[in-house]
Amino acid sequence: MTRTDRAVAEDLDRTDPLAAYRDRFLTPEPGLVYLDGNSLGRLPVTTAQRLTEAVTEQWGRGLIRSWEHWIELSQSIGDEIAAGIVEADPGEVVVSDSTTVNLYKLAAAALDARPGRRVLLTDDDNFPTDSYVFQGLAAARGLELRVIETDLDEGLSIEAVRAALNSDVALASFSHVAYRSGAIADLATVTGLAHDVGALVLWDLSHSGGSIPVPLRSSGADLAVGCTYKYLCGGPGAPAFLYVRRDLQDELRQPIWGWFGQRDQFAMAGAYDAAPGLTRFLVGTPPVLSMIGVGEGVRVVADAGIDALRVKGQALTSYLIELADEWLTPLGFRLASPRDAERRGSHVTLHHPDAWRICRGLIERCDVVPDFRTPDRLRLGPAPLTASYADVWDGLDRLRRLVESGAHESYPTQRARVT
Amino acid sequence: MTRTDRAVAEDLDRTDPLAAYRDRFLTPEPGLVYLDGNSLGRLPVTTAQRLTEAVTEQWGRGLIRSWEHWIELSQSIGDEIAAGIVEADPGEVVVSDSTTVNLYKLAAAALDARPGRRVLLTDDDNFPTDSYVFQGLAAARGLELRVIETDLDEGLSIEAVRAALNSDVALASFSHVAYRSGAIADLATVTGLAHDVGALVLWDLSHSGGSIPVPLRSSGADLAVGCTYKYLCGGPGAPAFLYVRRDLQDELRQPIWGWFGQRDQFAMAGAYDAAPGLTRFLVGTPPVLSMIGVGEGVRVVADAGIDALRVKGQALTSYLIELADEWLTPLGFRLASPRDAERRGSHVTLHHPDAWRICRGLIERCDVVPDFRTPDRLRLGPAPLTASYADVWDGLDRLRRLVESGAHESYPTQRARVT
Repeated sequence: MTRTDRAVAEDLDRTDPLAAYRDRFLTPEPGLVYLDGNSLGRLPVTTAQRLTEAVTEQWGRGLIRSWEHWIELSQSIGDEIAAGIVEADPGEVVVSDSTTVNLYKLAAAALDARPGRRVLLTDDDNFPTDSYVFQGLAAARGLELRVIETDLDEGLSIEAVRAALNSDVALASFSHVAYRSGAIADLATVTGLAHDVGALVLWDLSHSGGSIPVPLRSSGADLAVGCTYKYLCGGPGAPAFLYVRRDLQDELRQPIWGWFGQRDQFAMAGAYDAAPGLTRFLVGTPPVLSMIGVGEGVRVVADAGIDALRVKGQALTSYLIELADEWLTPLGFRLASPRDAERRGSHVTLHHPDAWRICRGLIERCDVVPDFRTPDRLRLGPAPLTASYADVWDGLDRLRRLVESGAHESYPTQRARVT
Repeated sequence: MTRTDRAVAEDLDRTDPLAAYRDRFLTPEPGLVYLDGNSLGRLPVTTAQRLTEAVTEQWGRGLIRSWEHWIELSQSIGDEIAAGIVEADPGEVVVSDSTTVNLYKLAAAALDARPGRRVLLTDDDNFPTDSYVFQGLAAARGLELRVIETDLDEGLSIEAVRAALNSDVALASFSHVAYRSGAIADLATVTGLAHDVGALVLWDLSHSGGSIPVPLRSSGADLAVGCTYKYLCGGPGAPAFLYVRRDLQDELRQPIWGWFGQRDQFAMAGAYDAAPGLTRFLVGTPPVLSMIGVGEGVRVVADAGIDALRVKGQALTSYLIELADEWLTPLGFRLASPRDAERRGSHVTLHHPDAWRICRGLIERCDVVPDFRTPDRLRLGPAPLTASYADVWDGLDRLRRLVESGAHESYPTQRARVT
């Protein structure tokens, strides 16, 4: 048996300590190979049950009285994220709003906390919504948005960060795992460099939370946001989480003053008085049904354990790269993610000039779901909790057959329409 | 038979043209009298079905591919609100974020559109979260927050608005129906007065949308936000809607720049370029499960028709007041809502010094769910779509018996914890 035989994948699945977790998710139709768990995580079986119960019993029968179950969900699910997903203490994470709104709240709070400094620092490989939020804040406040040029395959370089930081920088913000390449930024070193010049740091954990360890506490990280509908399997568009280091919480003030951030909310008092701790970073009434999905997703991911997920994530992506080297490089593909597993999150990106058409072909002809990323990249995200080694083998096997056949060339060249 | 006999309520229910709509909602436990439909609307039967299908089929099996069903939900449900709930044109309403976040976005956009004017005008009977948002914006921008004193029973007076408006006012913002008293503000006249001095107006429709006609188009209203989890029965914390008059859309710019507000979102381009029309008022990925609840709720309300709901809402609240006059005034209650049905939304508030304890007693001993509102008011919201005349009779009958017995006095005096 050679390394590219499917039997290798089957062997790896047999000894996968996380294999049983796949039964905790709804089985999609037979034959589907889902390699987009980092765009939308799969549905935990318990989520479907809990949502039915929440809709019928809590909303339908309990009605307004069920707020006793819901009023602390932002904080209690946040504490579960702090305990099982990222390295943080109770009271340092809450679930609230969208990732974008949370980026806005925390970036604005940080800028207010560094008056006189006129630079907001990010990089050109950050997720577009992060960049848009920072452009808006910079425009509104007359600040400079300083943008580090980043290698789209290899991610943020420490040297470039060091060169861009100085005492003009109020806030630096980067993605922990790059959405396109999967490259991991050195969270601890970057945080330290920013602190050396007195800047605050805001991390976007959307592609790291639930797939790799997130060393917030040990790095002294200031602020972070993260997505719950990717590796955390919270459901489509589920509310995001945000993290503020304990000792910063009472010092910072976010700009959207709302009743869920008010001290003694139901006194309905006239003057806004920001609640102590992280509650002041909440705004309005949270979307309860979507929140319930977040809680269920977080619990199944935390139960599997981030360390085990990291081990499998490295193994799955290394195996994927091994097959790609063998099968796809001869077909014009090039690895567009770090080759070093230590520097790579749980997805792998391949460059190919025809990536868009290949992506369409995989979805429409091959029952494989990857993701296209501009300008010419095929992103493959076998989520360690729900993907098997056989999924990776099948996905890559169908991919090489598609490109060998030239069948993808029947699709029009086009821009992406996939979240 | 006298007017206070239960048989009167039973007769009214027999001839109620909306009576059949009660079957389109999940039946709570027998005996429960739900008079808080204006805090959390009841569960439409179709919502439970649609959510199960969306969770299992769309999320669970369709996975990321189901974004084809979800990507335009904000706009398509917004158009249904424009067609059936408020008086607006297609493309003038979207569903997005919480009411509070939408207030922030629209108020900030309006203030930016009136540079040089240094007053934000509201009134002291506006909902607390509205007031908090305006306090935050005024503080951040060094503006004056001018607050009109309002009669807590009778609502906003035109004379007071006229006296407070001048050419310093950038934005005036009020609730269309007061959350405490149910008093209706004269949307058309207030809008006209604000326009006379060159100010923009932002209406909060949380207690009017889905219960009374909302004459946005005919009044030339500029901006509005509204809640979907009250009369629109969208589910707990469901995302809110916002309205921007067509000709203002391309002139205004909201401050939270995100990828759902970007022209050609999936091009993932570097520079933010606000989408044309109302899409620029969107921010991040919407909470899809909660959005689906909004769509179902809006459809059942629109199907009943706002005009029919208005007729029944006036009749139900007039009947409630008739019983209260007879039974409750002798027990120390006083009407704290407009007596004129034309000036009253679909809820009625009663003043009583012991309102908090009476509210606890109703919920815990009488199986009646009203709402407490500071400082000393009992709010009764028989939603016209889901409440019967018998509900009103039973609720008030149990209320008078509770207070006659003095049983409410066994509860501690306390502050409210009910949304």
